[in-house]
Amino acid sequence: MAKRKTRHTNRDQPAATRRRGSRGPAPAARVIERAAGPHELWLYGSHAVLEALANPGRRIRRLLVTGETAVKQGARLESLLAERGGGLVAERATREILGQLLAPGAVHQGLALQTEPLAERHLDELLADLSDPAAEDEPARRRVLLALDQVTDPQNVGAILRSAAAFGAAAVLAPGRHAAPESGALAKAASGALEHLPYLKVGNLAQALDHLKQAGFWIAGLAAEGDRPIADGDLGDRVVLVMGAEGSGLRRLTREHCDLLVHLPTQGPIGQLNVSSAAAVALYELLGRRRS
Amino acid sequence: MAKRKTRHTNRDQPAATRRRGSRGPAPAARVIERAAGPHELWLYGSHAVLEALANPGRRIRRLLVTGETAVKQGARLESLLAERGGGLVAERATREILGQLLAPGAVHQGLALQTEPLAERHLDELLADLSDPAAEDEPARRRVLLALDQVTDPQNVGAILRSAAAFGAAAVLAPGRHAAPESGALAKAASGALEHLPYLKVGNLAQALDHLKQAGFWIAGLAAEGDRPIADGDLGDRVVLVMGAEGSGLRRLTREHCDLLVHLPTQGPIGQLNVSSAAAVALYELLGRRRS
Repeated sequence: MAKRKTRHTNRDQPAATRRRGSRGPAPAARVIERAAGPHELWLYGSHAVLEALANPGRRIRRLLVTGETAVKQGARLESLLAERGGGLVAERATREILGQLLAPGAVHQGLALQTEPLAERHLDELLADLSDPAAEDEPARRRVLLALDQVTDPQNVGAILRSAAAFGAAAVLAPGRHAAPESGALAKAASGALEHLPYLKVGNLAQALDHLKQAGFWIAGLAAEGDRPIADGDLGDRVVLVMGAEGSGLRRLTREHCDLLVHLPTQGPIGQLNVSSAAAVALYELLGRRRS
Repeated sequence: MAKRKTRHTNRDQPAATRRRGSRGPAPAARVIERAAGPHELWLYGSHAVLEALANPGRRIRRLLVTGETAVKQGARLESLLAERGGGLVAERATREILGQLLAPGAVHQGLALQTEPLAERHLDELLADLSDPAAEDEPARRRVLLALDQVTDPQNVGAILRSAAAFGAAAVLAPGRHAAPESGALAKAASGALEHLPYLKVGNLAQALDHLKQAGFWIAGLAAEGDRPIADGDLGDRVVLVMGAEGSGLRRLTREHCDLLVHLPTQGPIGQLNVSSAAAVALYELLGRRRS
């Protein structure tokens, strides 16, 4: 092992560990045995890491934990690792090592996990799942998909995934070329939701909306100029809620593929909510409030 | 003027301009004529800066604008400066200068403004305003205050202020010693709401809640274990909604000062929303949905 360590040059280490430059080998070199490949990423933070460990579909490379967190979460971690059936062990790391591995300011809560991104899901698979009679445990249950039209900030998309999971949406979809990719920051903001809710990339959002229309979904765009409040939308049991980026809103082509436009009942000079707050309110109206 | 500039040592400049260290005088030295005092702060971002300029109660020291933003927003800025009645001019600055002045990563959109914090408001003043017959333009209108029990993240508090303004809450209050202070990051997330909605610091939250009870408010705590959904709260026309920090929730003493506890109808393994999403949903239910 010592030999492998000495072979590491700065160039072989992930960018995040190279920052110390001429101040000598970074302490992280003691645990970073292998550079992250192009398709691997680091997740961090309690909820994001624990939910990823609990997800059997998640291919995990490494798990780093600080001593303090090992004391607090040890039993939980052991049980999650046992359920995964061995092969993965928790490696001890200092806060400094985690600080170097992760983006500056990342709130890691003593836990970091190196993983492959989740397997890509496809819209047809999702529709098949939703139409599976076995999935129809609650026949009157409304199915809601959230489509994001160029919402790319990872914090916002993460918070949206979290709200979507909490209110029971079926999936979040986004055009592949204008979507926030799966990342540590997104997963942290999603607080574990990434492991419970499909985050689907589609090639062309307008085509995907047409496809969903054919599958019986109403397509409702959320826009300040929407002609009725979302509570009056009368939207039936299959709904796609489409949201645009803050400021620019829905693109013309996306808007043309909506069956109707709805708005949130805001007022006054600050008329627009943050996009993740707006998503939470809309999902509450479409899903949460119905059940309460 | 040239003389004044040459007298500036690094030590006289605000910390944010000192980072360049031995690489010679920072370009920011060309515009930074005076260190920010302990009671001054920099706001940045389009909405935060434009709404601050439009607020006659805001004491502004300086306004910096990039060339690009001056082209886009020039007319608007001129008109806002004219309304303020002179004394303040827009100073041209480069993106680099703004980058050095502000926190790393601050999305300034070409605008920064040095200001004193807003004047402190007091609960008694607010209650007097709410009881002023002239303010009773809509007699059936519900008055909602949002009380934050140790919610300290500036992004979350900013987003909460934005939602509170958008849904027409009367104020946001927080215990002075456990509150996010007015800051650039908070004002950016609030997107101008700080200029429209009182953000009140109280000495003791429990005492403030008692005071509000005596003024006819129902005190509703939002908590996962709340015994009824917020939509069924039957809360009358004067409501204080109390929210705790994510994870820890409401403190015992705060909870004991609530008349009732309500919850949001979430489900599944991701049962809790981000605190600013939860605030948006609760404010929608208490204020927005009523009007829609």
